[in-house]
Amino acid sequence: MPPSLRPPQGSAWLGRRLEELPTPALAVAEGTARRNAERMLQRCRALGVRLRPHVKTHKTLVRMFDRLVGVRPTEPGALELARAVAQSAPRRVALVGVYAHCGDTYQCAGVPEVQAVARATAAALGRFVDMLRQAGVPCPEASMGSTPSCSHPVPEMGALTELHPGNYLFYDLQQLQLGSCAPQDVALRVLTRVLGHYPRRNQLLVDCGWAALSLHGQQQGQGPAGCAAVEGHPELRLVGLTQEHGLLEPVSGALDFDRFPVGSMLALIPFHACATAAMHPVYYVHDEGRVVALWHPVRGW
Amino acid sequence: MPPSLRPPQGSAWLGRRLEELPTPALAVAEGTARRNAERMLQRCRALGVRLRPHVKTHKTLVRMFDRLVGVRPTEPGALELARAVAQSAPRRVALVGVYAHCGDTYQCAGVPEVQAVARATAAALGRFVDMLRQAGVPCPEASMGSTPSCSHPVPEMGALTELHPGNYLFYDLQQLQLGSCAPQDVALRVLTRVLGHYPRRNQLLVDCGWAALSLHGQQQGQGPAGCAAVEGHPELRLVGLTQEHGLLEPVSGALDFDRFPVGSMLALIPFHACATAAMHPVYYVHDEGRVVALWHPVRGW
Repeated sequence: MPPSLRPPQGSAWLGRRLEELPTPALAVAEGTARRNAERMLQRCRALGVRLRPHVKTHKTLVRMFDRLVGVRPTEPGALELARAVAQSAPRRVALVGVYAHCGDTYQCAGVPEVQAVARATAAALGRFVDMLRQAGVPCPEASMGSTPSCSHPVPEMGALTELHPGNYLFYDLQQLQLGSCAPQDVALRVLTRVLGHYPRRNQLLVDCGWAALSLHGQQQGQGPAGCAAVEGHPELRLVGLTQEHGLLEPVSGALDFDRFPVGSMLALIPFHACATAAMHPVYYVHDEGRVVALWHPVRGW
Repeated sequence: MPPSLRPPQGSAWLGRRLEELPTPALAVAEGTARRNAERMLQRCRALGVRLRPHVKTHKTLVRMFDRLVGVRPTEPGALELARAVAQSAPRRVALVGVYAHCGDTYQCAGVPEVQAVARATAAALGRFVDMLRQAGVPCPEASMGSTPSCSHPVPEMGALTELHPGNYLFYDLQQLQLGSCAPQDVALRVLTRVLGHYPRRNQLLVDCGWAALSLHGQQQGQGPAGCAAVEGHPELRLVGLTQEHGLLEPVSGALDFDRFPVGSMLALIPFHACATAAMHPVYYVHDEGRVVALWHPVRGW
C-alpha cells in the first residue's frame, strides 16, 4: 500500500510494516546486523584481540603503511617517523600504535587471496612493531582493518591487539562478491516502489535513483547494473539511475508487468553499504519486516 | 591555517575566511550564484516565459515524454492518458500541463547539438499541446527543463510557458564540458586540505573523498580524474578517492611539494554539482572568500 500523502513524522513509523514506509527508504534488518556483530566479536575473541568497530565517519590519525602514506615500514624513514611521534612532543602527542587498513583485500578474487593479503599485512605490522620495540619506541597497539580480512581472519592476526573492520555490520553486494559473507548476512536494503510500466521499452520505473543508492558499483564497468541487485528477482537488472529514479529491465526476454503493479515495493541490495547509508537521513531498523527503531546517522565533518 | 580542534558551531563561521573553515567544506560563491540566477531570469524574460527553478529534491508529477514514460507524444495513448488525467476525476486531479526534461542534452557534444535537441523537444511539446487543445483537453502549461538547453535557449522555447532548469545556479565541470557556462560561472567548490606528501609515489593526500565529492564523473571512463578539477592547478589530477581521502598527482613530471605544504588548502571543482551538494549538511556561502551565510539543504524523502 502506498504511503499517505502526509506521512507520520519520525517515531510514528515505529511498529509499522516496511510496506507502509515512504520510499525510497533504507531498511536495516536488526537480527541480521546483530548476528553480524556477534559473529565478528566471536572471531575477535577466538583470536584473542579486541574489536574496535570502524564507524566510517571517524578519521584515523596515524596510518603507517605504504598504500596510505609515503613511508614503507621497511624504510628507515618509518622508524624515524615513529620515534618523532613518540619522543618529540610526548605531552602533546602519544604514539598509541600502528594501523593497517588492509584495503588491498578489495582487489582480491575470493577468500584465499584475501587471506594471503591479510597474512602478509599482519606479518608486516608485526615486524614493524618488533623493530620499534628493539629501538626503544613503545608501541602498545597493532591494529588492522578491512571487512574482507576480518570476516575470514588468519591465525597470524592473533598477534595484533585489535581488529578494526567497519562494513561487516551491514555487508553488501561487494562483500558478497569478495566472499566476506553469505547472501543472508546482508542486512541493508533500499526499498523502492514501482512508479511506471513501459511495455514498449520492456522496463519498469522505480523511485530510487542515485540520491538514495549512490553510484558505487558503476565503476566496475557494468553500468548501473553494478550498483544494486533486486532481492528475489535475479531476472531483473538496474539499467538506469537518475537523481530520483531507477529503470529496471529483464536480463533477457519480456517483462511480466503483472508481477510488478504500479505502487508495489521492491528491495534493492546495494553494492556498497557505506556509500548507500551515507545518502539517508534515517535508517528504518526492522525485525521481520516491522519497524523497531529509527537510527539517525551523524553527518558532516 | 588549519582549523582549531574545537571548531565554532554553526553561525560562528559567519564572517570567517574560507581558509579558516574545517575541511572538507562546500563553498558557494554568492556573487557567482546570484549572477547565474539573474542571467537565467533575463533569458526567460527575453523569451517571454516564466522561470520555475528546479530544486532537485522535488519530484515532478506528470512527465509525458518518451524517455521518461512509456507513451510517445505521437502515440494515441498519450492523448488518452492526458484526457484521463483531465476528465476522469477532475475534483482530485487536474491536468496542469506537460513537461519535458530534455535530458538528452546531457549526451550532446557542444552547444549546437544541445540547441538542436532543445529545438526538437520544444517543437514536440508544442505539437502535443496543440493536439490536446484540438481534442478539447485544456493544457495551460508547457514546461521544459535541463540546464544545457536553458543556458542557450532557442527561439522555439518562447512558445512554452516556463523553463525549469536546476543545475544553473551552481554549474559544474559537466556543464562546462557541455558548453553551458564559462569557467568563471561555476559557483561551487569543495575545499580540502593537504594531509600528506608522498615523494616516492609523486602524490599528495587530501581530506576530500567520495563522501564529500560523490563518484559522479568517474563513469566517464577516466576514473577519479573525472570527478573534479583542482582550481588553479591544471597540472594536477585526482587519481584516487576513498571515503574520506583523495590522492592527487601531476598530469606529468615531478610534483613540486613545496607548493603544497601539509595543511594548505585546495579547491576542487566538482563534475556534478547536484551530486556533490547532496553530500554536504551545510553550504558555506561566501562573498570574495568571506563567509556571509550558511545554507542547510533539505534531505530525505
